[in-house]
Amino acid sequence: MQEKLKKYKVQEGKKHISLKDYPTDAGPGRPKKELKKEILEPNMQELRVLQEKLYAEDKQGLLICLQAMDAAGKDSAIEHVLSGINPQGCVVTPFKQPCAEELDHDYLWRIHKAVPARGMIGIFNRSHYEEVLVARVHDLPEKQPIPEKLVDEEIWERRFEQINNFEKYLAENGIRTIKFFLHLSREEQRDRFLRRIDLPEKNWKFSPSDLAERKLWDQYMAVYEDMLAKTSTKVAPWYIIPADKKWVARYLISEIIIETLQDMNPQYPVLSQESKARLAEYREILLKEEGLNEAENEDED
Amino acid sequence: MQEKLKKYKVQEGKKHISLKDYPTDAGPGRPKKELKKEILEPNMQELRVLQEKLYAEDKQGLLICLQAMDAAGKDSAIEHVLSGINPQGCVVTPFKQPCAEELDHDYLWRIHKAVPARGMIGIFNRSHYEEVLVARVHDLPEKQPIPEKLVDEEIWERRFEQINNFEKYLAENGIRTIKFFLHLSREEQRDRFLRRIDLPEKNWKFSPSDLAERKLWDQYMAVYEDMLAKTSTKVAPWYIIPADKKWVARYLISEIIIETLQDMNPQYPVLSQESKARLAEYREILLKEEGLNEAENEDED
Repeated sequence: MQEKLKKYKVQEGKKHISLKDYPTDAGPGRPKKELKKEILEPNMQELRVLQEKLYAEDKQGLLICLQAMDAAGKDSAIEHVLSGINPQGCVVTPFKQPCAEELDHDYLWRIHKAVPARGMIGIFNRSHYEEVLVARVHDLPEKQPIPEKLVDEEIWERRFEQINNFEKYLAENGIRTIKFFLHLSREEQRDRFLRRIDLPEKNWKFSPSDLAERKLWDQYMAVYEDMLAKTSTKVAPWYIIPADKKWVARYLISEIIIETLQDMNPQYPVLSQESKARLAEYREILLKEEGLNEAENEDED
Repeated sequence: MQEKLKKYKVQEGKKHISLKDYPTDAGPGRPKKELKKEILEPNMQELRVLQEKLYAEDKQGLLICLQAMDAAGKDSAIEHVLSGINPQGCVVTPFKQPCAEELDHDYLWRIHKAVPARGMIGIFNRSHYEEVLVARVHDLPEKQPIPEKLVDEEIWERRFEQINNFEKYLAENGIRTIKFFLHLSREEQRDRFLRRIDLPEKNWKFSPSDLAERKLWDQYMAVYEDMLAKTSTKVAPWYIIPADKKWVARYLISEIIIETLQDMNPQYPVLSQESKARLAEYREILLKEEGLNEAENEDED
């Protein structure tokens, strides 16, 4: 991993994390235009090539989870980092409040169904981590159809272990997981909410309920800290991405996805020895067909 | 609909269609570079804007079905027409041979599950139409777990009616369907297969089983003709796209998708009157928060 990216990765086995030690603004860095032109655009091209190989190889999958407070830029990061990719190789799943049928199942049931297939990149916009974040802040398990004896003070530790085991299982079956926490300052969230209020064309993005969640900022930071410390593993690491500058966040996410795909190193498949040996024969069959005109031989890809 | 596009649309209520009357090559037309630069790229931008509105509006959905013989360019059309779109608003579903669970259900069961949600563009790479194409050429219903009395000579007519009713139902619930048949000549298919054989980097795309299907060319054309005549409806029309020149096909598909979305005319939602009236109040709440520093007010989108 590039030296400059390492500092955003949460090492496995941390006892505790303090989000105050992680910047929400990566400093002046490079100007937006430069980042966009010199890094983000070439990265999109590189991502396209890697994704095509992953799809052709059809053996491994990549799962990318995005978690953050409201207005941290999850949606626009998906749009700006992943537009340009072949949509056939990429599935985005936004996880909203679970419906009654989903609540009637264990919490990983709906998650597992959405895990990317081999050859695919899957993006979770929010994820199973909501079950140790919003669920924890709002004491949801107490209100859900779960046996009471399973809802005790150990529930979050057990969930961390369950999630780590689930992601380990995925890794052992060829599905790699990486997780991004978009780390936004409370100040910047306020400013983004104010812009949604002040700019009529952004009004539709504003929801009064966002203000209620904002009031719980400190509780959220505490459960994020616990989650980040306990569920960053070697096979499925968390990255804490400074999110106050959207372009910087997108650039970092894009770099880390590319490094991960390079490490997965997908390869174009090769024909079986037998099919390869028979290629000349197939060629003859096609050339010997009768009643065909000559078509222009023009490779238009 | 633009005059130049009308000729590719199959009018409802045709008794019979002869594919020989439809070109596989739209003639010299405009050069590839010009099409790409002057139409396909601006179209991508336009598509992005329309898709964003569709997603924000969250009421209507668009289902795009692609059908064609092998090597007609379905996959690359998806890649070239729809890359650039926000992947969060677009889901591609490739339909392969049904698995045992799918065969244990009626044939629209797996299709319905993949119908795009409101706000979404869904692409079917192959579709329910396989059930009146490959299924018909290979007499599949006879080999499938269906009550024998339902497998008679009327089965294809009934399926046409079932499919028309299904798509009408979708239209009546806000999901619009358009269908593209990529019309490839037998000569051009041969040439594309030969390229896959001759160019080592394309070998992995070649499958010997493609040659077996190619032998059934005339049977396929006959069932395509019947399907195109019987299932092109006002609410869910078929377009017969000349596919011998990939860039021309992509350009036509892109134009038709855009016209369809323009006709659907999605609109950004507006806040409820009540929320709107309270915006000033929400603004005050945010401004009155204590203990916050000033953040840079910079809209970075």
